[in-house]
Amino acid sequence: MKKAEFLSGDAVVVVGDGGWGTTLAMLLHEKGMDVTLWGAFPEYVKIVQECRENVKFLPGVQIPKSLRITADLGEALRSSRFIITAVPSHYMRSVCMKIRDLLPPPAMSESRLIINGAKGLEMETLMRMSEVIHGALPGIPAVVLSGPSHAEEVARGNPATVVVASDVEEHAILAQNLLMAERFRVYTNTDVLGVEIAGALKNVIAIAAGASDGLGFGDNAKAALITRGIVEITRLGVKLGAQPSTFSGLAGIGDLIATCVSNYGRNRRVGELIAQGKRLEDVLAGTEMVAEGVRTAKAAYELAKRHNVEMPLTEQVYLILYRGKEPEKAVRDLMLRSAKPEIEQFEPRDECGGNT
Amino acid sequence: MKKAEFLSGDAVVVVGDGGWGTTLAMLLHEKGMDVTLWGAFPEYVKIVQECRENVKFLPGVQIPKSLRITADLGEALRSSRFIITAVPSHYMRSVCMKIRDLLPPPAMSESRLIINGAKGLEMETLMRMSEVIHGALPGIPAVVLSGPSHAEEVARGNPATVVVASDVEEHAILAQNLLMAERFRVYTNTDVLGVEIAGALKNVIAIAAGASDGLGFGDNAKAALITRGIVEITRLGVKLGAQPSTFSGLAGIGDLIATCVSNYGRNRRVGELIAQGKRLEDVLAGTEMVAEGVRTAKAAYELAKRHNVEMPLTEQVYLILYRGKEPEKAVRDLMLRSAKPEIEQFEPRDECGGNT
Repeated sequence: MKKAEFLSGDAVVVVGDGGWGTTLAMLLHEKGMDVTLWGAFPEYVKIVQECRENVKFLPGVQIPKSLRITADLGEALRSSRFIITAVPSHYMRSVCMKIRDLLPPPAMSESRLIINGAKGLEMETLMRMSEVIHGALPGIPAVVLSGPSHAEEVARGNPATVVVASDVEEHAILAQNLLMAERFRVYTNTDVLGVEIAGALKNVIAIAAGASDGLGFGDNAKAALITRGIVEITRLGVKLGAQPSTFSGLAGIGDLIATCVSNYGRNRRVGELIAQGKRLEDVLAGTEMVAEGVRTAKAAYELAKRHNVEMPLTEQVYLILYRGKEPEKAVRDLMLRSAKPEIEQFEPRDECGGNT
Repeated sequence: MKKAEFLSGDAVVVVGDGGWGTTLAMLLHEKGMDVTLWGAFPEYVKIVQECRENVKFLPGVQIPKSLRITADLGEALRSSRFIITAVPSHYMRSVCMKIRDLLPPPAMSESRLIINGAKGLEMETLMRMSEVIHGALPGIPAVVLSGPSHAEEVARGNPATVVVASDVEEHAILAQNLLMAERFRVYTNTDVLGVEIAGALKNVIAIAAGASDGLGFGDNAKAALITRGIVEITRLGVKLGAQPSTFSGLAGIGDLIATCVSNYGRNRRVGELIAQGKRLEDVLAGTEMVAEGVRTAKAAYELAKRHNVEMPLTEQVYLILYRGKEPEKAVRDLMLRSAKPEIEQFEPRDECGGNT
């Protein structure tokens, strides 16, 4: 079987019944695929099965009766060629270990494909999600799915354009063929590192954008934050070996814009509430949803220090979240940086990762 | 006198009493400069003088009593070292000719500086605003002011970051020194062409973004439109000789974001209303404000054809506005373009304008 060949009979398991996992399962189900949605908590899975609504994470969206939902990962995995991971980043390693236990070596092979929709960095190791996955499941190739794709909109059939990235182009094309739908346009990219760094760090900038909103600063300030935000994300990404052009694309500036302007943006909302005077603990206690940016801010701050990269926005978000800095003071410190020429040149990288 | 030296006694005339001109006049007045705001229509100028409010173009913002407002351009020009132009693009040539008549050659010299805040292309000639200005006022150097800066926000003291561009760096620095304020951060750039192309064409993409809003498509779709929009603007700009990096900056993606997401965006609003089924004539008749993007769409479409540059979004906006194409059909045609690898590489240009 050629790897890039997509067979409509191939089964898919979506690992993670959050908003994004549920949405992807519905999308593939609608395409006629054999899909199983897996959730970790049997009691909650039962509620979703019965209500046909993911009441906590995707309220108001009806889930078709014919979409299989289970808390039995082993059964779901057994026949699945495609494994879509969509769990919070801090559960990624344990979920992958669970998959490893359930898929003995002969079953864990190149005939399967993981498509990872989770964004973030592992806090303790500063590893990207695909690194965590490769480490835990070395036998199965993994593709990264990213781009501006609020689940709440995709689930309602609003158009979205996303990116699937793999250093093996035919894996990216296979994921593209699997996911592509009339209102869900999938582009391929080979810069896995860039796509993942952008997808993780956008959530940190979104907290800054939310803080700007919370201070009532308006669209000019937010547009400037987004613009400067992608510059510093690019700076880190390029230092780590990513292609600068990735950050000008859907997985870079595209996803950052959606995350910073949308009312669905949980990280933006965290920044907004904190700027309005709420305490971080109270903000986080008030939601079951995961604001990935809070964890990522710490990881990104440490990554920037380790690689000696200047990331003023990320640094201020870290100081607000972890050192109790006043958001207004943080934004003022950013605004009052000395004026200088604006443009920074990022040279495209050659195949070997060096600058051309 | 050294050109980059900024003297607080230097007088400024702001040519154009729209929202942006009024805002810039107020900003400089607050800095203690000797400022005169000029408007073309004596009766309206009288209203603004008396109400101390620009009721049509900047409602709700109080103008200080001490800010001079006049309909006598000759008097305002006579002692002014700085001339800030902020008129709709289709009036730029006639206003410049008026300035030329009022400033005889010995007075029209390098000791003055024009700072142009108008964005757009001259429809008949496809010229950029600085080209129009240089043609009409060849003796006076001109700097371009751009970036995300909705007047309604700047006038209320919300923070904004902008760009001043000139191929003569000390002119840009002079404009920077003049305009810089605590909540109005000014960066310099030497790529005049790129800054102007970005500033003009963003209004076309904003119409597309508005159409997406009008169709209820949400933030994922809009973020994708903005991302693809700056790609095609970059494509045209680079073909004309601009630096690709300009389009990743405040005057590029920054201004485009603000224009596409803000409720103040007039071009966004035009697209939204048209997508909701309103006729263009009725939309334009309903506002005294100028939606530059409607004119620019035609100019950009012709520029793209002339230079053989693919600009699918601009083309669809042109077809909607000038050929009666259904917005939903236009968006569908954009979404259904065949899937392909996403990234396009723009090489930085060397000093001579060739690709490095």
